[in-house]
Amino acid sequence: MNLPNAQSVSEFDRQMMRNCLNLAKEGLGKTAPNPLVGCVIVRDDQIIGEGFHPGPGQPHAEIFALRSAGELARGATVYVNLEPCNHYGRTPPCSEALIKAGVAKVVAGMVDPNPLVGGQGIAKLRQAGIEVIVGVEESACLKLNEAFVHRIIYKQTFGILKYAMTLDGKIATDTGHSAWVTGAIARQEVHRLRVACDAVIVGGNTVRRDNPHLTTHGQGEPNPLRVVMSRSLDLPSSARLWDTSEAATIVFTEVGSRPDFQEHLRKKGVEVLEFAPLTPAKVMSYFYERQFLSVLWECGGRLASEAITQGCVHKILAFIAPKIIGGQAAPSPVGNLGFSQMTEALSLEAVSLRAIGSDYLIEGYLSNGWSGALPEAFQFQTTGSKAL
Amino acid sequence: MNLPNAQSVSEFDRQMMRNCLNLAKEGLGKTAPNPLVGCVIVRDDQIIGEGFHPGPGQPHAEIFALRSAGELARGATVYVNLEPCNHYGRTPPCSEALIKAGVAKVVAGMVDPNPLVGGQGIAKLRQAGIEVIVGVEESACLKLNEAFVHRIIYKQTFGILKYAMTLDGKIATDTGHSAWVTGAIARQEVHRLRVACDAVIVGGNTVRRDNPHLTTHGQGEPNPLRVVMSRSLDLPSSARLWDTSEAATIVFTEVGSRPDFQEHLRKKGVEVLEFAPLTPAKVMSYFYERQFLSVLWECGGRLASEAITQGCVHKILAFIAPKIIGGQAAPSPVGNLGFSQMTEALSLEAVSLRAIGSDYLIEGYLSNGWSGALPEAFQFQTTGSKAL
Repeated sequence: MNLPNAQSVSEFDRQMMRNCLNLAKEGLGKTAPNPLVGCVIVRDDQIIGEGFHPGPGQPHAEIFALRSAGELARGATVYVNLEPCNHYGRTPPCSEALIKAGVAKVVAGMVDPNPLVGGQGIAKLRQAGIEVIVGVEESACLKLNEAFVHRIIYKQTFGILKYAMTLDGKIATDTGHSAWVTGAIARQEVHRLRVACDAVIVGGNTVRRDNPHLTTHGQGEPNPLRVVMSRSLDLPSSARLWDTSEAATIVFTEVGSRPDFQEHLRKKGVEVLEFAPLTPAKVMSYFYERQFLSVLWECGGRLASEAITQGCVHKILAFIAPKIIGGQAAPSPVGNLGFSQMTEALSLEAVSLRAIGSDYLIEGYLSNGWSGALPEAFQFQTTGSKAL
Repeated sequence: MNLPNAQSVSEFDRQMMRNCLNLAKEGLGKTAPNPLVGCVIVRDDQIIGEGFHPGPGQPHAEIFALRSAGELARGATVYVNLEPCNHYGRTPPCSEALIKAGVAKVVAGMVDPNPLVGGQGIAKLRQAGIEVIVGVEESACLKLNEAFVHRIIYKQTFGILKYAMTLDGKIATDTGHSAWVTGAIARQEVHRLRVACDAVIVGGNTVRRDNPHLTTHGQGEPNPLRVVMSRSLDLPSSARLWDTSEAATIVFTEVGSRPDFQEHLRKKGVEVLEFAPLTPAKVMSYFYERQFLSVLWECGGRLASEAITQGCVHKILAFIAPKIIGGQAAPSPVGNLGFSQMTEALSLEAVSLRAIGSDYLIEGYLSNGWSGALPEAFQFQTTGSKAL
């Protein structure tokens, strides 16, 4: 953590940083592989410019904010939730644009863990005589971009397993009926969550049993890519997921599985990709190559346990409905992990809990990825709130 | 709910009522079939007398408090979490003792739902010119005596089902290993909970697999009566529960089951009782006859589902550990309830949640008993904070 000198950060600074985070969220689900960034420019305690990063190939948040501030930016303070970049990517470096605009001060939420940036943006600004403060609302900044941070550090797409279960640990009745475990407010929260993820993954069982939409149901844009993993391709010929007018669907299967059915799906606009063998790890590699930041596993227990075992799940969102359904054979959220002793259980880290309508959400991180703090190798030397 | 005139109740009144509740808790696990009652007598904002009800056949809290106040009680204010009684039971009525002592005012937490009292104690006090206020910290007063209230209203011992599960809904691994699901702080909470319950019930599986103590482990006195339900009596000849030096144990079984083993248990000081057939409902009737206020079901899923189905569970305490163990065949907290549609699930009422160490506790009430509010028939007319 980069802790700025406490006296140098005011409640106004924190408020402006929260404004940046809210602006950054305009890009939810659209920025991969880039981070979510918002920027606010302030002069005499008045906001004179705002911007956010809308997606790859488009200007960064700072550029939009500088444009909207115009000449007023000279001598102003720039708030941005992530360190300004200092490298030529698809766009020129923001550090140069800020220097050129003559800003007096930059307040950044966090250092960019990307080794291409990694404190160099801050150093460049300071060299130019600009005062830089780093680490304002850092926890919130890290959390908003946890998938981006995970992807940079672990060179892997961030995997989130979400499930909804009763208070006795069941995701459906013993006949497979699951509509609905949680209430409307919790389900809306899941729909909003889908906006923020680049893909939503289910297995064949979920398609056969629930015939889900896997869309945002009007809770925001864009819809995630909808993904089905099915080795057998034993899937219904009609399914909501095969209607690609609302959102795209990919089906992953084994090489050579049911060529006729593959053709049937392709005709409907569904992309079909073959792997040998089909595993969660291979699917995650595919998404990493596609530069996805995060995927949401909304699958049943068997696929969830495979995904966990293969290191494809880094965060768990467990929605818990305060109701009892019973059923020893009724499905649970996670299948076999091969553990015989309770001491082998995977402990979650940085666990938090909140009520959502009449339900509860417990979330936490597995120890195989991002769980709330930057590894030491990614904590770049940026401390000190004074200009060099 | 009896809502006293807001202006007539001060923070000092509420603090004194909380003192009563703390005093009342001295009787936890010892008062059945009587309620938990504490009493504080105040004069010139100074506490001049205190008392609690230690158990059946012994004086009520008010009597102990009056004794400790002595002559100072004249003109004083008496705080008590339950309406003073007005009937001759094993002891003379408290209402008469309070009148005789010449107290000026009585502040009661709640009306006694017992039809033998039911507002008559308050009426008697008012007739004697004593000012009476009812309903101070009423929710907390009702909660502390929820088992007593349930027993009075539903003529049934209050049944609490407690279980500890992982975040994926498992109470053990698929080999049955369960030590430990939750952390030390949550387990201590369970040990304290046992102090407050008159009996703790498990099935034969739990004895065979876990060999539990079912004591308070030094977290308070008394130990509950330890109860095993086993139709087959297929139980180990040695078990911690057969050592009755620390706490008593009853084994319930079917008529005629393994007479030799019954004899073996009796020789060790274990009481053995036969039922035909043995069911949770019969065990609950037995405990009602024994005047127990509450029992704690700490059993596995199969017995838990029978107890729920037979209306023997009224409150559920679900301890949830933020860890993932996996295992589709690993045991869940509740066996078959015969539900095939998720809409049939039993919803909990008055649900609350708190963190306990690194674990969480979600508690709530089934709709078949006490769940936080008195039925109308038990809301006696006591409103009004002024003396008659």
